[in-house]
Amino acid sequence: MPPLLLTPGPLTTSDQTRAALGRDWGSRESDFIALSEGVRARLAALAGVERTHVAVPVQGSGTFAVEAAIQTLVPRDGRLLVLVNGAYGRRAVEIARRLGRACVTLEAPEDEPILPDRVADALAADAAISDVVLIHCETTSGLLNPLPDIAACVRQAGRRLLVDAMSSFGAIPIDGAKIPFTALIASANKALEGVPGLGFVIAETAYLRGCAGNASSLSLDLFDQWRGFESNGQWRFTPPVQVVAGLGAALDQLHAEGGIAARHARYRRNCDVLVQGMRTRGFTTYIEPALQAPVIVTFRIPAGGWFRFQTFYDFLHARGIVIYPGKLTHEPSFRIGCIGAIGPDDMMRALAEIDAYLVAHRTVHTLNRT
Amino acid sequence: MPPLLLTPGPLTTSDQTRAALGRDWGSRESDFIALSEGVRARLAALAGVERTHVAVPVQGSGTFAVEAAIQTLVPRDGRLLVLVNGAYGRRAVEIARRLGRACVTLEAPEDEPILPDRVADALAADAAISDVVLIHCETTSGLLNPLPDIAACVRQAGRRLLVDAMSSFGAIPIDGAKIPFTALIASANKALEGVPGLGFVIAETAYLRGCAGNASSLSLDLFDQWRGFESNGQWRFTPPVQVVAGLGAALDQLHAEGGIAARHARYRRNCDVLVQGMRTRGFTTYIEPALQAPVIVTFRIPAGGWFRFQTFYDFLHARGIVIYPGKLTHEPSFRIGCIGAIGPDDMMRALAEIDAYLVAHRTVHTLNRT
Repeated sequence: MPPLLLTPGPLTTSDQTRAALGRDWGSRESDFIALSEGVRARLAALAGVERTHVAVPVQGSGTFAVEAAIQTLVPRDGRLLVLVNGAYGRRAVEIARRLGRACVTLEAPEDEPILPDRVADALAADAAISDVVLIHCETTSGLLNPLPDIAACVRQAGRRLLVDAMSSFGAIPIDGAKIPFTALIASANKALEGVPGLGFVIAETAYLRGCAGNASSLSLDLFDQWRGFESNGQWRFTPPVQVVAGLGAALDQLHAEGGIAARHARYRRNCDVLVQGMRTRGFTTYIEPALQAPVIVTFRIPAGGWFRFQTFYDFLHARGIVIYPGKLTHEPSFRIGCIGAIGPDDMMRALAEIDAYLVAHRTVHTLNRT
Repeated sequence: MPPLLLTPGPLTTSDQTRAALGRDWGSRESDFIALSEGVRARLAALAGVERTHVAVPVQGSGTFAVEAAIQTLVPRDGRLLVLVNGAYGRRAVEIARRLGRACVTLEAPEDEPILPDRVADALAADAAISDVVLIHCETTSGLLNPLPDIAACVRQAGRRLLVDAMSSFGAIPIDGAKIPFTALIASANKALEGVPGLGFVIAETAYLRGCAGNASSLSLDLFDQWRGFESNGQWRFTPPVQVVAGLGAALDQLHAEGGIAARHARYRRNCDVLVQGMRTRGFTTYIEPALQAPVIVTFRIPAGGWFRFQTFYDFLHARGIVIYPGKLTHEPSFRIGCIGAIGPDDMMRALAEIDAYLVAHRTVHTLNRT
């Protein structure tokens, strides 16, 4: 039986999505062009920006799309402010520095959100900052940064906002008509519930039009990629045709579920069942409830020395459940995801296996100690 | 019914390969790590260099892997000689120029091979050239460049050779024990008969070890990607797990078929049936037989004005057969591929449909003219 993936992605996909991978496509055929155009149009519409922005898919992982956005949208003489409270913020900084883009950071601890007032101050203090990168949901911790207020600040200050919405897009409603952004970046295999192999950037058309020549990479040039689609509907370079078909099927299912609001409600139920169940079992969460995105939850490694993550992981893995190690800088932790083609019943199943683990391991420990 | 893809890729895959796409994988699980390591080891072994080189997969299309190789293997102060007799040579030049690598070219017409003596002269005349890029099979035309002799020249001159073997690797035996190269670049979805979403570079380990810091792209840094695999067997960034599984299944089938020599023989039969059949029907090939790779065949657009490529293409497409437009700079042409999970029977089926087209169109034309 395939594993139940309680991870930040690749994650559990539906039978329908995987069935959509089962055919060949000519990448320059009219039916594949129509499939690609339908996917692009639906992605922009899901962000509420179908009139002002275009969705440009990029082959590769989500990081490839983040890099394509920074390569192409930040001018060579621009100056980037990256808002950092986790590993994905740090990764955006690394991308910018490699590319030779001037880059400054505004940092917060991994369990605290980026505060809009601090962003406003940073922008007021440095008029050379052209672009701001925000990680919407920091998958490092599971924390949700306050996108609407930060977006308002950045717009107020007349700068551009690039939103890394990798794990939030599809899980949390983002209405681009009310939340101004120049670009939103995500991938097929997170809350859209497709398979991995494809990222995308939803970019403001009027701005993208002026971005020729910014990218030093041919493969990751978002402007050229967009012009390719606009000229004949085709991808410049061979697309992962089955992955695109999987995303198309996944978007059909998102629509049938009732859109992002309905999916958000399901993920919220998954998250509530998980968090309440784990608390009942004595685990504590790293992120306070008001800041917790219903995407992935970080739990602290219990005190007392009896809990070994690898043993816990292996026990669950042997029972077909995959969880994730922690990624925090300063504290031992582990993570359990709430997203994918899964429901509260799956979280209950995971909790039942966790009970079995606790019976076997916590009791033994307690007996050993008494 | 899915189409019969007589294209340079994505191409027709087997039922087993597509079936391998039908499950979820945790990308950091032991079973997926084992799958990835098995694929990497088999790729290096297929090139005959498992002792001296490592295979480093790269998410994205084949062009992403070519760019990763140039980004990482050509030093920032290096000087690249690109051997150009088609669009893929020109693309390597564009990649190098974008990246700011010094780049010169040695060009030949699209229907002529790159001659080893000219390469030797070019290298003798310019001591600053550090690296040479050769397109083994130029998919633009279908021409096979003389890799063994050019590789010997480049080694003799003490330079590095990067071989773009995108459409030839798996179709034509390349014994790295006899043909010296620093890197060989290909992708999952050509003659290995996997699905698209993954390229790879088979790079000389001793040289790659010194290539830290060359790449300006984080996503396309082949050194970092390799170090990631070496450290824990994992991909740095989310891999296209289903595409990797598809490649694993495709490599199993390549082994079962008898390896690259047996596959080469099948492709050669496909090519012979196609070329002889088309000649019988009055078409002429662009590349002379001795230079024709059994990968893709360029046919001239027949003279006389009666032949319309779009009509021909649409006629075949409506019958489930996909061919490709031409890509030559100076001459109208079209292309029919010989690679993929197809055999001589499939080529016969295509010829039968071409007959139907000719009956309907060439006769009408002749009647109109007389």
